[in-house]
Amino acid sequence: MRYALGIEYDGSGFQGWQRLSHGASVQAAVEAALSFVVDHPLEVVCAGRTDSGVHARCQVVHFDTEAVRTPYALQQGGNSRLPGGVAVLWCQPMPQDFHARYSARARRYRYTILNRKIRPAMQREYLTWERQPLDAEAMHRAAQALVGEHDFSAFRTVHCQAPHPNRNVHDISVRREDDRVIVEVQANAFLHHMVRNFVGSLLPVGRGEQPEAWVGQLLAGRDRIVAGPTAPSNGLVFLGPRYPAEWSLPAEVTL
Amino acid sequence: MRYALGIEYDGSGFQGWQRLSHGASVQAAVEAALSFVVDHPLEVVCAGRTDSGVHARCQVVHFDTEAVRTPYALQQGGNSRLPGGVAVLWCQPMPQDFHARYSARARRYRYTILNRKIRPAMQREYLTWERQPLDAEAMHRAAQALVGEHDFSAFRTVHCQAPHPNRNVHDISVRREDDRVIVEVQANAFLHHMVRNFVGSLLPVGRGEQPEAWVGQLLAGRDRIVAGPTAPSNGLVFLGPRYPAEWSLPAEVTL
Repeated sequence: MRYALGIEYDGSGFQGWQRLSHGASVQAAVEAALSFVVDHPLEVVCAGRTDSGVHARCQVVHFDTEAVRTPYALQQGGNSRLPGGVAVLWCQPMPQDFHARYSARARRYRYTILNRKIRPAMQREYLTWERQPLDAEAMHRAAQALVGEHDFSAFRTVHCQAPHPNRNVHDISVRREDDRVIVEVQANAFLHHMVRNFVGSLLPVGRGEQPEAWVGQLLAGRDRIVAGPTAPSNGLVFLGPRYPAEWSLPAEVTL
Repeated sequence: MRYALGIEYDGSGFQGWQRLSHGASVQAAVEAALSFVVDHPLEVVCAGRTDSGVHARCQVVHFDTEAVRTPYALQQGGNSRLPGGVAVLWCQPMPQDFHARYSARARRYRYTILNRKIRPAMQREYLTWERQPLDAEAMHRAAQALVGEHDFSAFRTVHCQAPHPNRNVHDISVRREDDRVIVEVQANAFLHHMVRNFVGSLLPVGRGEQPEAWVGQLLAGRDRIVAGPTAPSNGLVFLGPRYPAEWSLPAEVTL
C-alpha cells in the first residue's frame, strides 16, 4: 500500500531535507520514525527537497509498505517518534500511481524579509534581515517579469541538477506587512536556489539600486553571474506542493 | 546621565529576565554588553521581569552612566556585543526621574495558542498547543469579567512577591486567526504568572468544560487552588510597557 503524508518542519535543526552521511536531515528523521511504526526499513519520496535552514509548512511525501497500519496509526506513531521540529500533519492511503514529486503540478514558497534598522532577535530563523528601506511595490512590479514559462538560467545555481532550465512561474507577489516584506511565488517546479535567487535580485530593486526593468533583463540575459546574490535561507518556507483535485488530498495541497 | 533602551528578545535561550547565579539571563546579557560599551560595571532596571521561555517584543530598561556616549553608540555597540537572541531596538537619554518600572502606567502581553490536532513543528517556542477545539468567542466573553480593578489572588502564583494582589486590567481580548487563538491583555501591572493563569482558566471555557461565568466566579473567590492550571510559557510575549506621552518615548511604548 502507498501512503501520502503532509509534513511540517522547522529547518533550523537540520542540514536540509535530503538524507546525508554527515549530518541530520529531515528525510532521515521521517524515515526512522515511519520505519519504526511499520517495522521495516523504508524510503520516502518528497515533493520538493529543501536546503539547509529552509522550513516547510506542508512538505508531501509518499512511501510503500506491506504492513497493515491505519493512516491514523502511521500519523500518530510517526509523531511520537519524530523530534519536536518535525510533525506529520496528515496521512492517507493513495493509489499506487500517485507520486509525491511527479504528480505535483505546482509548488509554493514564501520568503519573509524583516525590513528595519535593527537585526531581529525574535523568530530570527524565520526572517532575513534587510536594513535599507525597501519599496515593496517596486519589487512587486519588477517581479511580474518572471511570470510565465521561461529559461531561468539567470536564477539557477551552478550546482542545480535539473536536466533543463525551463520552469513556469504561475504567480509571484511582493507585499509589505508592517516592517516585513513578504515574497510569495508559485511555479510548476523550481530550479535549485531559484526562490532565493529571485529574492537576491529583487532586493536591489527594492533598495532603489536597480530599475524595475532590471529583473526582466536578467531573465532575458540568462547569465547567473550578473544577477543578484543568493538571498539567505533564513526566511524561506516551502508552503507545499499542489496536486490535481482527483487525488483527493487535503485542500492545502490541492490545486 | 540616564538612558532608556527598548530591547527585543527570544526567551527560549534564557532562564528568564532576572540575573541568576546558576543560568543565562537576558539581564546579564544586556548588562555585559552595555558595560563593555561604557567601560564600567552597571545594572539595568526593567519595566517587567519575564519568566524562563517568555519572549519580549519591547522590554524597556534604564541605566545610569557618567561615560560620554551617544545613544547611537550605546545601541550599536550594545548590539554588536549581544547574542543573536537579544537586540537593542532604540536608546535615548532620559531625565533622572524616569524609571523603567515605576514610570510605566501599563504593560501588554500576547499569548498565542495553536489550536489544531497536531503538535507544532515550526515556531514552536512561540506557540502553546491545544488539540481540543476552542470557542474563542466564549473565551473572549468570559475574559471580560477580568477587566477593571480587582483582587487577582485567584490568578497569582504562591511565589509572587508583590505586596498586594490588586491590579487594574485595562482590556483583554481573545480572537481566532485561522488555527491560532490569540489572547491580548493590558493592565497597569501584572502579578507573577497572572497572564498564564488567565489563559489556564480561559482554556476550560474554550473547550466547553466550564461555563463562561466561571472566570468571574474564580476572580470573586480569590482562591488560586480552584482556578485553572498555569498555562505553559511557550506562546507568551511581553509586548512591552507604556509610559505617559510626556516622556517622549517611541510610540510603541507610549500610552
